Amino acid sequence: MNSADLGRRVGVPSTALFTDQYELTMVQAALKAGTADRRSVFEAFTRRLPEGRRYGVVAGIGRVLDAVENFHFDDEMLTFLREQNVVDGPTLAWLADYRFSGDIWGYPEGEVYFPGSPILRVEGSFAECVLLETVILSILNHDSAIAAAASRMSAAAGGRGLIEMGARRTHELSAVASARAAYIGGFDTTSDLAAGFRYNIPTVGTSAHAFTLLHDTERDAFRAQVDSLGRGTTLLVDTYDVAEAVRTAVEVAGTELGAVRIDSGDLLLVAHRVRQQLDELGATGTKIVVTSDLDEYAIASLAAAPVDAYGVGTQLVTGSGHPTCSMVYKLVARAPSTDPAEPLRPVAKKSLGAKTSVGGRKWAARRLDENGVAEAEVIGTGPVPAELADRQLLAELVRGGEVIAREPLDAARERHIAARSGLPMSAMQLSRGEPVIPTEYM
Amino acid sequence: MNSADLGRRVGVPSTALFTDQYELTMVQAALKAGTADRRSVFEAFTRRLPEGRRYGVVAGIGRVLDAVENFHFDDEMLTFLREQNVVDGPTLAWLADYRFSGDIWGYPEGEVYFPGSPILRVEGSFAECVLLETVILSILNHDSAIAAAASRMSAAAGGRGLIEMGARRTHELSAVASARAAYIGGFDTTSDLAAGFRYNIPTVGTSAHAFTLLHDTERDAFRAQVDSLGRGTTLLVDTYDVAEAVRTAVEVAGTELGAVRIDSGDLLLVAHRVRQQLDELGATGTKIVVTSDLDEYAIASLAAAPVDAYGVGTQLVTGSGHPTCSMVYKLVARAPSTDPAEPLRPVAKKSLGAKTSVGGRKWAARRLDENGVAEAEVIGTGPVPAELADRQLLAELVRGGEVIAREPLDAARERHIAARSGLPMSAMQLSRGEPVIPTEYM
Repeated sequence: MNSADLGRRVGVPSTALFTDQYELTMVQAALKAGTADRRSVFEAFTRRLPEGRRYGVVAGIGRVLDAVENFHFDDEMLTFLREQNVVDGPTLAWLADYRFSGDIWGYPEGEVYFPGSPILRVEGSFAECVLLETVILSILNHDSAIAAAASRMSAAAGGRGLIEMGARRTHELSAVASARAAYIGGFDTTSDLAAGFRYNIPTVGTSAHAFTLLHDTERDAFRAQVDSLGRGTTLLVDTYDVAEAVRTAVEVAGTELGAVRIDSGDLLLVAHRVRQQLDELGATGTKIVVTSDLDEYAIASLAAAPVDAYGVGTQLVTGSGHPTCSMVYKLVARAPSTDPAEPLRPVAKKSLGAKTSVGGRKWAARRLDENGVAEAEVIGTGPVPAELADRQLLAELVRGGEVIAREPLDAARERHIAARSGLPMSAMQLSRGEPVIPTEYM
Repeated sequence: MNSADLGRRVGVPSTALFTDQYELTMVQAALKAGTADRRSVFEAFTRRLPEGRRYGVVAGIGRVLDAVENFHFDDEMLTFLREQNVVDGPTLAWLADYRFSGDIWGYPEGEVYFPGSPILRVEGSFAECVLLETVILSILNHDSAIAAAASRMSAAAGGRGLIEMGARRTHELSAVASARAAYIGGFDTTSDLAAGFRYNIPTVGTSAHAFTLLHDTERDAFRAQVDSLGRGTTLLVDTYDVAEAVRTAVEVAGTELGAVRIDSGDLLLVAHRVRQQLDELGATGTKIVVTSDLDEYAIASLAAAPVDAYGVGTQLVTGSGHPTCSMVYKLVARAPSTDPAEPLRPVAKKSLGAKTSVGGRKWAARRLDENGVAEAEVIGTGPVPAELADRQLLAELVRGGEVIAREPLDAARERHIAARSGLPMSAMQLSRGEPVIPTEYM
């Protein structure tokens, strides 16, 4: 049992146990009560954006499709469930045959979203849909959080290179999904080889302080690196004295040196000094890469510095202060019986407190102003108004259990750039604010 | 290529690509320079605890051992590295034969740690050790962050039950590792079936609002659940009106009802009302479980409420504000040549700025005061003082590439309880503060 995430030419495993126990016990109780087959609609959405954020970024849809496709219980899992008395015999038999046979519509990957946006709509029997709740939310909540941070960073970077290098700061498989989400959000490359292997994201690498310390002198280290990796390599120049390292670097590699990396100190100041020194040494084409706990604010603050690329780790893979979204997966409509002819009825939790939700199967559209700029996220349960018909956001992803909407990762990346640029300009502000467009219900 | 994490009776895959590209290119350059075989010591440590935290919790050691054991490059990976020109032919040949053959010592899992504690010490050739950097840090930085949050929550819960239920808020495999780390930190159970499957952590489940909404009445839903799962089940009582739901619950299940769950509203107030109502109805043994964005502060604030168990999700799996630790993996000593007879020399980065480190292969011990309470984390590179000899913290984990120190998860959990209770009382304070004991170097 592994992640469907890492399936490149590898026997693809099951995702069925990435599931909270109560999903299975609810299935058991519903099977016994005769309600398991009531046709149901679940929607994944968020009641709010992380505090101060102006838009969300949908990521993980491709991984959700893999997860749904690979959601099945093998013998070993069934044995575990039986031995631990998680569910009873009839439920085990039902699980053994489980394959999702319903329909899924959703916001395509890279699209932006707002509070209430029905990001994913899952329709089928209650039992087959409820079972998918946990793994769907795991993927969307994680991947969208990383993509949102990446999008802010890429807005701040203004076209300069962005390298994802956070693998060491998060779970080893979160890291792979993070590299994927970061790429969707606008990053160019990743240091994570597994992300290159699985998703063909371009991989890059520089060098660590350990490599310099391994050698008897910094010059020896630089020479070893250039001898092996060529003059186009990136040399790390802050192990000892930066100015001396830059001088040595150009002596060893010549003025065709690819880049230098600065990983500590006052990056603004040091980048200016290093640029001046490189230029004086004739290495005018040598690029400067900065790393060291960068986030979108630090990136923005370096806009006036002679920096060519940013390497971002911790703050990217932890969502820059918001490591998860608050997406929930709620039953919004269901049939009153198992008669397929009966129309669905909207349902919603109605207890006191903030956790109420809007019932009914929803459509969503983005209304534009006369300049073609987004002005509202419109969500409804009735007929779609004619003027919004071609602005609808939900795409068909799974039909009768079959995934019908796979796409290359670059399509999601390009969609995100287009979606973000269709928002009001204030979307790009890093300061805290309200969602950049309101959500309207009709 | 999957996580070694999920290997229960499953062919265990490789962890070798959970690696930053520069680890491989450094190996290539060192191989060419003839420095790859210099005997080296790397240490994983953190320069600081997350702001305000008083101690750290070591978690992930067992997963690190799995990762080291399963770190090998299969044909598919080598093909990828060749096709993408990540490394050259001689390096590919070296990688094809790669198996870690060195030694690892470390803090045992569940132990507490402080700034500078040498949590893991990896010794072997430069090349074989540097290659492990990324995956070791991924595991330790993630798992220790979750365990630290869990430990604070379990201190706040004061013996009441703690259920880990954060799977939906984090990457599906982070979720499994989080459940494992939470158990070490003091949680009792998890909702995550994969965590039960892989690590034998007890799994539990209640019911969701969707289950109530599926049925025509709350009474129908409760009856369906009790009919199938028995009177000992936990009924969710906040879908509509809590008082009415509690009345219905006891009518349906009788006074032997196992528990009710409250997932919204003012938990302090509602818990008191529900307890009173249950007692008046004669259901004096029915427990109250509360959930709803709990963290250690919310748990502590409910200390006076009649709550029997807490279900914790988001804040646990995101480390309660600190989703990653800042552990680094640094070369601290190396041989001046590949002659095995040459003694190791300490090395350390010396550039300006905060990122300096202390060179030399280290030991660590916890000094106790006359009452047996920890008073300092003592770290040294010379001989161990006699009075600290039996207070040493590093245990041998891997010898000559062979893992020699596996242990059941319960051992780590018990070790954590013991280690935490050996700290000064102020360790248990939730307020922000300095590390509860100082780190001394000698």
